[in-house]
Amino acid sequence: MSRIITIGVAQLGPISRDESRGAAVGRMLALMERAVRRGVTMLVYPELALTTFFPRWFMADQSEIDTFFETEMPSAATRPLFDRARELGMAFTFGYAEKMVIDGRPRRFNASILVSPEGEIVSRYRKIHLPGHFENEPWRAFQHLEKRYFEPGEEPFSVCDMMGGKWAMAICNDRRWPETYRECALRGAEVLTLGYNTPLHYPLAPEHDHLQAFHNHLCMQAGAYANGLWVAASAKAGREENCDLLGQSCIIAPTGEIVAMASTVGDELVCADCDLDRTREIRENIFNFAMHRRPDMYPLLSGATRP
Amino acid sequence: MSRIITIGVAQLGPISRDESRGAAVGRMLALMERAVRRGVTMLVYPELALTTFFPRWFMADQSEIDTFFETEMPSAATRPLFDRARELGMAFTFGYAEKMVIDGRPRRFNASILVSPEGEIVSRYRKIHLPGHFENEPWRAFQHLEKRYFEPGEEPFSVCDMMGGKWAMAICNDRRWPETYRECALRGAEVLTLGYNTPLHYPLAPEHDHLQAFHNHLCMQAGAYANGLWVAASAKAGREENCDLLGQSCIIAPTGEIVAMASTVGDELVCADCDLDRTREIRENIFNFAMHRRPDMYPLLSGATRP
Repeated sequence: MSRIITIGVAQLGPISRDESRGAAVGRMLALMERAVRRGVTMLVYPELALTTFFPRWFMADQSEIDTFFETEMPSAATRPLFDRARELGMAFTFGYAEKMVIDGRPRRFNASILVSPEGEIVSRYRKIHLPGHFENEPWRAFQHLEKRYFEPGEEPFSVCDMMGGKWAMAICNDRRWPETYRECALRGAEVLTLGYNTPLHYPLAPEHDHLQAFHNHLCMQAGAYANGLWVAASAKAGREENCDLLGQSCIIAPTGEIVAMASTVGDELVCADCDLDRTREIRENIFNFAMHRRPDMYPLLSGATRP
Repeated sequence: MSRIITIGVAQLGPISRDESRGAAVGRMLALMERAVRRGVTMLVYPELALTTFFPRWFMADQSEIDTFFETEMPSAATRPLFDRARELGMAFTFGYAEKMVIDGRPRRFNASILVSPEGEIVSRYRKIHLPGHFENEPWRAFQHLEKRYFEPGEEPFSVCDMMGGKWAMAICNDRRWPETYRECALRGAEVLTLGYNTPLHYPLAPEHDHLQAFHNHLCMQAGAYANGLWVAASAKAGREENCDLLGQSCIIAPTGEIVAMASTVGDELVCADCDLDRTREIRENIFNFAMHRRPDMYPLLSGATRP
């Protein structure tokens, strides 16, 4: 039986600070309609798809910060997305700021969900590799306060069975860490979906700014190849509140080849027929883990940051 | 104090099956003379630099196989290399087939050594990720019997202090495994040297043959970037005994950028000024391991091949 799935990546252009959830969801729905006309049955939206990338501002008032968080999912604003996808039989994934009360304590995560063609949330993920910093650093052109506003995810990457394939999720900075792809692949993932908000300007090392696009694709192509999995990565792109965000949303084959890529920094759909059986070309040969991996020789990877 | 080291990569063209060790060392010496004129103080030769890539043939007779192994290092044939390097104050590394008697039993490894400017062997490495197969498979255009002729290395990657920097070695297929770079980086490596013999034709997935050069650089550039280290990689290249080997020996900066690359498939020197302090641009920022790595979230990497 064929396991070719037409995956779409729905890149979003900038979302302004005062843009409503309803407006963002309206744009997501428009991309979903485009996607169905292209035969897409699984659609990937970016990280923090419902709002502007709010960690770029320091806010002292928690109630203000909380306006960017969702306390339920689906919410009233996102319900139309779930409803339309279910009508279309389309699976999808997107990222959002999640506020949960756990054991009486409010917890906040940079999260994503995977929704099946039947409209069920079949997998949840909370970002493991939070980049940025904790304190207000006014010298920066913009802040990157993910470490302040979110707790790091406390569950390892997981793999979910859906549509005859094995799916994993990661978010933005996770894609720069080879551990992300490897943990997912060791769990059998065949597709890794990713969303990102990546400024072109990196305040800590501005001499690398011209390398942002190169690094973005380098880490994802290498992760796809070294693990024999498909990567579908969706950007929030363009000039958002005076911050230029990288586009180049893409779909990457298990060979590491980019097979589809966005060429704007606005709302844009790219898609590709992804044969999940092609993971075997890599995983049964050069990267046959059981035959060739040497976990005993990697004592530091799981256990410690220093020898 | 400046930590700029001029590293040379000495690519070797093909070595025929009947070429003597003396002839190979003569070619290595010629490259060393070129290197000294370019200001190189550390020179990287390929994997199995002293002989043809003999795992491409099935040989039943162990005494025939053993003709490709070294039983001492330096040997009579390689002594001139050690002597000349010490005169020049040049450090170097190369790979060779090592036969050792350990606890009364002969052991064979795909090995490399690092030799200091003072002529001392300061580090030894035995290839961890042996590719290929155990049995003769006559359907192949050529064999890849590393798993038959060598035992896998039983020591993790190690890092050696030399010339004010921290050096690690890996060999050929090791470079395709993200674990290699990460284990070395967690031990503090600033430069990873690599040698390789990589056929353009991969019998298990010939549909990927046109991707060999892409994959070669992809994994090394990603490994350099994700770990903020220099990579200096030396090929045995060209048509060796009817087998076409990839060239494109290169030096890669901690940003993942290729800063020097061979453009022939013969004996060729490339070199670059490598500022070891540039590792900090990456390792103190985006890939600050202590701040951002999440070893608890990677339970499978060190311990098991399955969850």
